Amino acid sequence: MMGDIPESVVRDIVARALAEDIGPGDITTAATVAPDADCRAEIVAKAEGVIAGLGVARLVFGMLDPQMAFHEVAADGGRVSEGMAVARLSGNTRALLAAERTALNFLQRMSGIASLTAEYVEAVEGTDARIIDTRKTAPGLRLLDKYAVRMGGGRNHRIGLFDGVLIKENHLRAAGGVGEAVRRARKAAHHLVKVEVEVQTLEEVEEAVAAGADVILLDNMELDDVRRAVDLVSGRGEIEVSGGVTLETVRALAESGVDYISAGALTHSAPALDLSLEVADD
Amino acid sequence: MMGDIPESVVRDIVARALAEDIGPGDITTAATVAPDADCRAEIVAKAEGVIAGLGVARLVFGMLDPQMAFHEVAADGGRVSEGMAVARLSGNTRALLAAERTALNFLQRMSGIASLTAEYVEAVEGTDARIIDTRKTAPGLRLLDKYAVRMGGGRNHRIGLFDGVLIKENHLRAAGGVGEAVRRARKAAHHLVKVEVEVQTLEEVEEAVAAGADVILLDNMELDDVRRAVDLVSGRGEIEVSGGVTLETVRALAESGVDYISAGALTHSAPALDLSLEVADD
Amino acid sequence: MMGDIPESVVRDIVARALAEDIGPGDITTAATVAPDADCRAEIVAKAEGVIAGLGVARLVFGMLDPQMAFHEVAADGGRVSEGMAVARLSGNTRALLAAERTALNFLQRMSGIASLTAEYVEAVEGTDARIIDTRKTAPGLRLLDKYAVRMGGGRNHRIGLFDGVLIKENHLRAAGGVGEAVRRARKAAHHLVKVEVEVQTLEEVEEAVAAGADVILLDNMELDDVRRAVDLVSGRGEIEVSGGVTLETVRALAESGVDYISAGALTHSAPALDLSLEVADD
Amino acid sequence: MMGDIPESVVRDIVARALAEDIGPGDITTAATVAPDADCRAEIVAKAEGVIAGLGVARLVFGMLDPQMAFHEVAADGGRVSEGMAVARLSGNTRALLAAERTALNFLQRMSGIASLTAEYVEAVEGTDARIIDTRKTAPGLRLLDKYAVRMGGGRNHRIGLFDGVLIKENHLRAAGGVGEAVRRARKAAHHLVKVEVEVQTLEEVEEAVAAGADVILLDNMELDDVRRAVDLVSGRGEIEVSGGVTLETVRALAESGVDYISAGALTHSAPALDLSLEVADD
Amino acid sequence: MMGDIPESVVRDIVARALAEDIGPGDITTAATVAPDADCRAEIVAKAEGVIAGLGVARLVFGMLDPQMAFHEVAADGGRVSEGMAVARLSGNTRALLAAERTALNFLQRMSGIASLTAEYVEAVEGTDARIIDTRKTAPGLRLLDKYAVRMGGGRNHRIGLFDGVLIKENHLRAAGGVGEAVRRARKAAHHLVKVEVEVQTLEEVEEAVAAGADVILLDNMELDDVRRAVDLVSGRGEIEVSGGVTLETVRALAESGVDYISAGALTHSAPALDLSLEVADD
Amino acid sequence: MMGDIPESVVRDIVARALAEDIGPGDITTAATVAPDADCRAEIVAKAEGVIAGLGVARLVFGMLDPQMAFHEVAADGGRVSEGMAVARLSGNTRALLAAERTALNFLQRMSGIASLTAEYVEAVEGTDARIIDTRKTAPGLRLLDKYAVRMGGGRNHRIGLFDGVLIKENHLRAAGGVGEAVRRARKAAHHLVKVEVEVQTLEEVEEAVAAGADVILLDNMELDDVRRAVDLVSGRGEIEVSGGVTLETVRALAESGVDYISAGALTHSAPALDLSLEVADD
Repeated sequence: MMGDIPESVVRDIVARALAEDIGPGDITTAATVAPDADCRAEIVAKAEGVIAGLGVARLVFGMLDPQMAFHEVAADGGRVSEGMAVARLSGNTRALLAAERTALNFLQRMSGIASLTAEYVEAVEGTDARIIDTRKTAPGLRLLDKYAVRMGGGRNHRIGLFDGVLIKENHLRAAGGVGEAVRRARKAAHHLVKVEVEVQTLEEVEEAVAAGADVILLDNMELDDVRRAVDLVSGRGEIEVSGGVTLETVRALAESGVDYISAGALTHSAPALDLSLEVADD
Repeated sequence: MMGDIPESVVRDIVARALAEDIGPGDITTAATVAPDADCRAEIVAKAEGVIAGLGVARLVFGMLDPQMAFHEVAADGGRVSEGMAVARLSGNTRALLAAERTALNFLQRMSGIASLTAEYVEAVEGTDARIIDTRKTAPGLRLLDKYAVRMGGGRNHRIGLFDGVLIKENHLRAAGGVGEAVRRARKAAHHLVKVEVEVQTLEEVEEAVAAGADVILLDNMELDDVRRAVDLVSGRGEIEVSGGVTLETVRALAESGVDYISAGALTHSAPALDLSLEVADD
Repeated sequence: MMGDIPESVVRDIVARALAEDIGPGDITTAATVAPDADCRAEIVAKAEGVIAGLGVARLVFGMLDPQMAFHEVAADGGRVSEGMAVARLSGNTRALLAAERTALNFLQRMSGIASLTAEYVEAVEGTDARIIDTRKTAPGLRLLDKYAVRMGGGRNHRIGLFDGVLIKENHLRAAGGVGEAVRRARKAAHHLVKVEVEVQTLEEVEEAVAAGADVILLDNMELDDVRRAVDLVSGRGEIEVSGGVTLETVRALAESGVDYISAGALTHSAPALDLSLEVADD
Repeated sequence: MMGDIPESVVRDIVARALAEDIGPGDITTAATVAPDADCRAEIVAKAEGVIAGLGVARLVFGMLDPQMAFHEVAADGGRVSEGMAVARLSGNTRALLAAERTALNFLQRMSGIASLTAEYVEAVEGTDARIIDTRKTAPGLRLLDKYAVRMGGGRNHRIGLFDGVLIKENHLRAAGGVGEAVRRARKAAHHLVKVEVEVQTLEEVEEAVAAGADVILLDNMELDDVRRAVDLVSGRGEIEVSGGVTLETVRALAESGVDYISAGALTHSAPALDLSLEVADD
Repeated sequence: MMGDIPESVVRDIVARALAEDIGPGDITTAATVAPDADCRAEIVAKAEGVIAGLGVARLVFGMLDPQMAFHEVAADGGRVSEGMAVARLSGNTRALLAAERTALNFLQRMSGIASLTAEYVEAVEGTDARIIDTRKTAPGLRLLDKYAVRMGGGRNHRIGLFDGVLIKENHLRAAGGVGEAVRRARKAAHHLVKVEVEVQTLEEVEEAVAAGADVILLDNMELDDVRRAVDLVSGRGEIEVSGGVTLETVRALAESGVDYISAGALTHSAPALDLSLEVADD
Repeated sequence: MMGDIPESVVRDIVARALAEDIGPGDITTAATVAPDADCRAEIVAKAEGVIAGLGVARLVFGMLDPQMAFHEVAADGGRVSEGMAVARLSGNTRALLAAERTALNFLQRMSGIASLTAEYVEAVEGTDARIIDTRKTAPGLRLLDKYAVRMGGGRNHRIGLFDGVLIKENHLRAAGGVGEAVRRARKAAHHLVKVEVEVQTLEEVEEAVAAGADVILLDNMELDDVRRAVDLVSGRGEIEVSGGVTLETVRALAESGVDYISAGALTHSAPALDLSLEVADD
């Protein structure tokens, strides 16, 4: 339904969100709307941005009314401007109103992430650097947050702690240095997983490459040092930079020749995209 | 543990967040850290703000190492400045590193909400208006988001669709007007629940009061009309305003004499508070 | 499906009930009935009463055979007499027999509650008092028990501890008196929730009203005192009575002018309505 | 904890019951009771009866406060009279008050079942007949209801559709007669499960015995026919009677020489035993 | 769907198996196959054996693509030879490839069990002894393993610890001997459950029969002693033998006149049947 | 507890296994063993092999009796011979007997896998080839099966479909060839995941290397072709072989210079290691 995210995973997230909001019942709708009333409605953009999460929104409405018609006017990854219709739907009024807030909560969050990501991606256009996300996502919404990053034109880092080795400063302390840590990881990880290591200095960059690291993570390094690190590695591995990346600084980083620029802000600080649901007068 | 949120609810949210991040295992930590290694660490503020979620963070670490010591240096609702320690912890290194990102994801999001709420609350200081949240929360995190609002000095609106009647424009359309909708709701709701209704015009304000609404919601109304509505209601009910509330506009609204000002931004657009976990050199 | 109870909630309850009864399999049906046999059957009333729970029964059968036809002859809230058909169904015989007991267990319990409630409601006919339920329901069946009360013509009290403030004697002891407890509750509760407080004496009635209680609960008070309390409150709040309410005493209580009469017996001591399922000879 | 019921099963039932009542939080207790207040309380019988479910009640309180002390004054299966203490407990006041209703709901229902069962058991004292329950239990509470029957001195029938073959009239219709149905069941069931069959006539009694039925169920048979059936079977199998069994008719049935008398009323129509929780003044 | 196993039970097992394999997504299929591509495929036997589990395999594919067509060429319980098609299917290519391994894991395991069971059943052909399974199944797959035994022509022992009494050596030690243990079990078990007891000596055989055991389990007894036990019991109960049963020894045991021969190897040591899924060239 | 497998994952598997076996209760133990009886017992090897799963066994017993003492005599990965004690335990007799079969089912299966893996590992000793597992595991037991392989000295392949790209023949068909498939995967996968591709011919080997595959999987290739492939790749990638690997053929394959040899038999056809639990006479 949504790229490679298993539908059962999304269904589970959606069911919990609905249960959280509706609990034992939507008492307002039950009191004011007839059980068999139908209506048509539109989800409308109140601001400019990139849409993500229409499949989730469709699922939210479908869970409360399997007959709900949901027509996507915009598409995930597409840009909308203020006033544009994003989707049109029709079905049981009670179901539609009970689902409204939950559907919008998903759609506004995901579209907010996609919109912010798109700004970063545009900022580095023409360079070889790719904007990637981090694990700094809302608890429980990792896969949706990462999907939204892709819809904004970004790429994903590993999904979690299980599908990639990323040795950070705190691991290095425990393992006793970059070289030793990389060697241990190489030996322990299965043969389809790469090893990335975070370094602070150019000496550590060299140590990491020598120990066989596939990717070097330059964390919070000055731009000049980033450039020196790129020269030093010289194709013997890939390079990611992270730390304090902003829309102002990202272009210069990208032009330094790094492969990946990761930014937690994409998922932990993106403002929601303003969207609303409007029931049609019939 | 955290006000009146049942611990089982928080445990369930935390367990899912950990499962999402760790999945079948943290392969980096397993490769680089000895199973029985211990360490001490500190959660440090990298920016100024209001802390919320220490109880959740404690639970995250405790789930991976029941012996983990977690000492709160700051307290939920307290203000921290850049560089201050927020909490000190010590325990099994593998557990600590596997839990780190999940704990920080909760703490940074909740502290971000508390910090933004505090700004709104300060902006209306000295008035009788109270800043309240909405249902525009991250799916699955409703109770935590609302707790964070309280820690920032705000108050909560209803929790979900089940513990308060709030008749919005889309319900009015289905019920055929303010008066009829309020009467239906009065009749259907049990005797411990109040009825709030959203209105667009001063005529509807009067209609709502006449029909026995307990609270009037003025949505996206001009400041002048808000003032007129306050005069009109004149104590016959409470008044909430919502829609387009910003730090710039909130003071004037508060001075108009309304009882509640609700802002979705508190929970859907608060940037994360920057925090990091630093393992001590021993 | 059933008023404002979310279908997912009912499905979950039904799935557990079926799992409890069928476990790893219905060995009698598997041994004696061909897998593809079909049959028609009827649910028949063996006693007079009010029906409630047909939607749940339909769901029970539908979970084991999605093609099961289930035609309601009676309707929830309707009265049946001995020998009357309540519902007709047809479908896979194995599914029908495996579901039979579970479906009847729901239907008999809920109809028993509806029938007893109807007796109380009739006993107060013509007065302004409304018969309401309590939280004394069968664990796990709260929403169904409360639905059955509505089908019997009663009304519901709050659903649980989360959607209304009801300060009882044990809370008063902890808070230090009626006035203080009511004030604390007013301050803590969100603005769509009312505050009810249980009192023992007329002095406490006055104290409660003065502190701003919305509803006064007179628990186990003598009839004369109830009348005095009604006079004392004199419209400054609503009044609920509870404690030792029986079909013999309820009318006099209702005529005293109280607003609500709650009885735990409706849900904890209603005898099941006798119903049976009869497979038709073809 | 409670005979042979696995603790995990009871925990699951209790957790759901608490979640149903407390939901997102007990707002009354949070508003009126300090988080760290402690108290002592007593569960007191308000009527005469047999207690069952103390282990469940203990678990309810323990789930909200693991430090809660719970001292059983009465014991499951023991008789209490009005005014007697059933249990004494002390612990966190918030936990105690939030758990109170749920604990009592379990204890009152189970004690009600035990008390009614005890009446039936006493009525047949001195005969060889044993009072047994049915599958007519509250959905989701099967194991607790059956435990309560044992505490009242009764014995259990099979737990569900999986641990015993009981061929009823509707199965016979599908299988084409008593003999054929019994033979099919004998063949299909594993070698540790017995076969019981419901019969309507003395001819069927003979047919059942001849086909190798282990137990004959006489459903709604006249007392004289029951006696004739006992003579006819004459030890070649066991005999159960069911249908319309009341406290008035049960003795005569027992004296007819049957082995088991089953009554749905034990679990579907037992009135709750009146119990209350009283917090001590300190 | 599969004999008397409730579909909800199988669905739960299948959903977990899919979640375990697919987790957050099948990244290979997402990368290489278009979302809307369809294909046809065949499950082919690579070795001779008995098929079991086609219903489970169908469910696996159906969970990922509800439109998947699944045509059984062989049938559960039927014998296939190398190269034969077992099933043909067609549907969404991504779903088919993501489900492939899980479906085959079920089908190969269950067919392996059925195939091994069939060898034991053939080895005792013509005798009255029946080959039965044990509780030595793969954790979580009990019902499927036992279904596979039936498909191989074997019969089932009890399902678990709840649907039959089997007193083993360790229970005897606690109860103080065969006679006492059998008497306790007779008294505690409900009237539709039989009592089986494991014995080591001929004296214990006699003691067991005298105490009313329904079935005697001869564990690891020499063949001569088995024969003597059969003579001794002489129809006063049924006899099961277990312990060290192999394809070499099973015939002689069967000819000794025992009723049941149980073998753990059927479910804990059956090699998988080699099967593969081949996508058709279109 | 067990390498890098999260304890919550193992707990969940164990809880399901216990529920499957015990269901509503262990009726034999309840009937024959006093509730408070304690005993000591030993798990003893009845055959030679490598042990795996002691941590799981400990958890099984601990779930039924948190006070159970469990002392490991052998260690996971250690070799035992017939008659050796593997573990000693003491605790509540009812808990111990109810847990026995489930604990042994885990331990026997995992030790069987470890033992068979050890045979393969020994067979290739002295070469550079490593024995690795596949995804052909028992549904629901993937992580435990893979842990057992490690205990036998083998290494793991990817855990599931999410933590490594492995393009198989069926994907190639959909993608239109080795080169195109590898390029698509490179582009879609995040930067910490490698790309492996299955090839049939030496031409495809070259195509795979040219397209940037990290690992080449030679499936069911003749030994001579395997040697040619090793020469051809010549260090430009790693090589895995699979298909029809047996203890007879594995050495020659290993000597051909491949990096990995994978065998489904390790997990789908390993016979259980014979172990038993013996309660001590006190």
